[in-house]
Amino acid sequence: MFVNTGCVEVDMEKESTTQAPEVDFELTSDQTHNRWSSAIEPVLTVPSGSVIKVGTEEASDQQLDVNSTLEDLANLSFDPIHPLTGPVYVENAEPGDVLKVTLHKIEMGDWGWTAIVPGFGFLADEFTEPYLKTFELGKDKKTAKFSENIEIPLKPFPGVMGVAPDTEEMLSTIPPRENGGNMDDPNITEGSVVYFPVLVEGALFSIGDTHAAQGHGEVCGTAIEAPMNIIYEVEVIKGGRTISEPQYETDDYYAVTAFATTIDEAARKATRYMIDFLEEEKGMDRQDAYALCSLAGDLKIAEVVDVPHMLVSMHIPKDIFK
Amino acid sequence: MFVNTGCVEVDMEKESTTQAPEVDFELTSDQTHNRWSSAIEPVLTVPSGSVIKVGTEEASDQQLDVNSTLEDLANLSFDPIHPLTGPVYVENAEPGDVLKVTLHKIEMGDWGWTAIVPGFGFLADEFTEPYLKTFELGKDKKTAKFSENIEIPLKPFPGVMGVAPDTEEMLSTIPPRENGGNMDDPNITEGSVVYFPVLVEGALFSIGDTHAAQGHGEVCGTAIEAPMNIIYEVEVIKGGRTISEPQYETDDYYAVTAFATTIDEAARKATRYMIDFLEEEKGMDRQDAYALCSLAGDLKIAEVVDVPHMLVSMHIPKDIFK
Repeated sequence: MFVNTGCVEVDMEKESTTQAPEVDFELTSDQTHNRWSSAIEPVLTVPSGSVIKVGTEEASDQQLDVNSTLEDLANLSFDPIHPLTGPVYVENAEPGDVLKVTLHKIEMGDWGWTAIVPGFGFLADEFTEPYLKTFELGKDKKTAKFSENIEIPLKPFPGVMGVAPDTEEMLSTIPPRENGGNMDDPNITEGSVVYFPVLVEGALFSIGDTHAAQGHGEVCGTAIEAPMNIIYEVEVIKGGRTISEPQYETDDYYAVTAFATTIDEAARKATRYMIDFLEEEKGMDRQDAYALCSLAGDLKIAEVVDVPHMLVSMHIPKDIFK
Repeated sequence: MFVNTGCVEVDMEKESTTQAPEVDFELTSDQTHNRWSSAIEPVLTVPSGSVIKVGTEEASDQQLDVNSTLEDLANLSFDPIHPLTGPVYVENAEPGDVLKVTLHKIEMGDWGWTAIVPGFGFLADEFTEPYLKTFELGKDKKTAKFSENIEIPLKPFPGVMGVAPDTEEMLSTIPPRENGGNMDDPNITEGSVVYFPVLVEGALFSIGDTHAAQGHGEVCGTAIEAPMNIIYEVEVIKGGRTISEPQYETDDYYAVTAFATTIDEAARKATRYMIDFLEEEKGMDRQDAYALCSLAGDLKIAEVVDVPHMLVSMHIPKDIFK
């Protein structure tokens, strides 16, 4: 069940995408696995520098659809969650390297859902009744209709991105870990560049759990869960700075991420990682770096529901460095 | 020491400010107190609707200046922290009312400082040596020079705003509480409208601890601490929704705030307060409100250092409501 095989090497003909580079390889949304493990065989092997187009399934793996009811939700099994497209073996990636993943293009699918699942969510003790809402989406949609008078702007991103952990155990995909995984960070969107610590040979990168919209926190436990198409590029970085957990950047800022069982501890780790970054990448003294984090670094809550791990990032703007 | 008296009622002549309304009253930066208590006598009594211009002192209350050294920092006493301009008694404000405070204008002073004070800060166990940096500022400055190649954009705001608590005890101003106080929320800046629960007759509003720049978290324990001038307006709201802790809004979003001894618990409270807001102000069902917070509500860390209380806000954009 965890292994799907077969990959499609597409022609080098120009994809109908804006600003995305030509696609070298393609994976479909049924080429998925749903655990984190070094024992899951890759569905594709690519050289560093490859551009890959993938279909991603929504988190329930087709247990729900746009017409689903509360009864369907009651029958929802957590076992298939999350279907992740991959793993992709990146040639020459070795433990200690960094895998750089650039999200060139994220294209919305046709529908999405949001639910309150009893027992799950930040206020699970207070919201014990099931709830389900579905949305009609589409690649040109800019908002999701929440109700007659509420429209939510769409900002699609992959809730899960990660490399295989250094274990043959079949780990749940619910909590984020040092391999990335269910980071649910709504800032990691089209145009972002994400850096993962390579933990096993070939990195074994996977992506999925795409979200059409999500606030910082994802407090009820779900975003607008929606299938999508993503074009991303992988690159192996050797001999650079080592990182303990994923980091990322946009045109505007550098970011570190940290998971822990409390927001407080995740925030402490994120602060330390940013100080490390400023020391190692910007040549700063640690006290200066700590003070700079206080004046210009922003602690940001990504998610507070992927038990047992909360995820916090710290951002620092690029334009403060002259 | 906690009571300064005397107020200056200024002419209704036009202040040399942009977009701020005419100033009705003025308080200088020596009209301060530095504890929260209902026993501190007001320095000014005003009707609802008054516009007040205040000078604010930096957090150390002149124990430091732009030429201070580590030796001066070693002699820093926490006792005078924070000098707060006020209290202002607002006529007709009674417990159960809400005090609306509009920050019309915030004008930078001439200098500022940032320090690591041993024993204080988010990573106090790891940063045990003192550190001090001072900055030359000024009302037309847009950035603070952190080093030869780092310039920090200025975004001035009052770290402390609050009403008197319902106690005659002289409470420390370090932690934020239900009366507001040391919220250190960098989003509450010029143009923001802040709502405080009135806890005692006259509200007894005070403001100070002005910050020229601060990241979300204020991790080293200090911002760029700087004196300023602020023009604000007070208004008593009767018969409206009651609030347990301060809330605020900008042109772009509504926000609730919550304090607790952990970020996790503050985030839970903030989520509940936003659900209450959506239920009471927008007429939403609680499940819908919880789901909407998950899709469009952003948990935001304000500060993680004002022991023993962390402050978290939740923002929800205004433009989702049609």
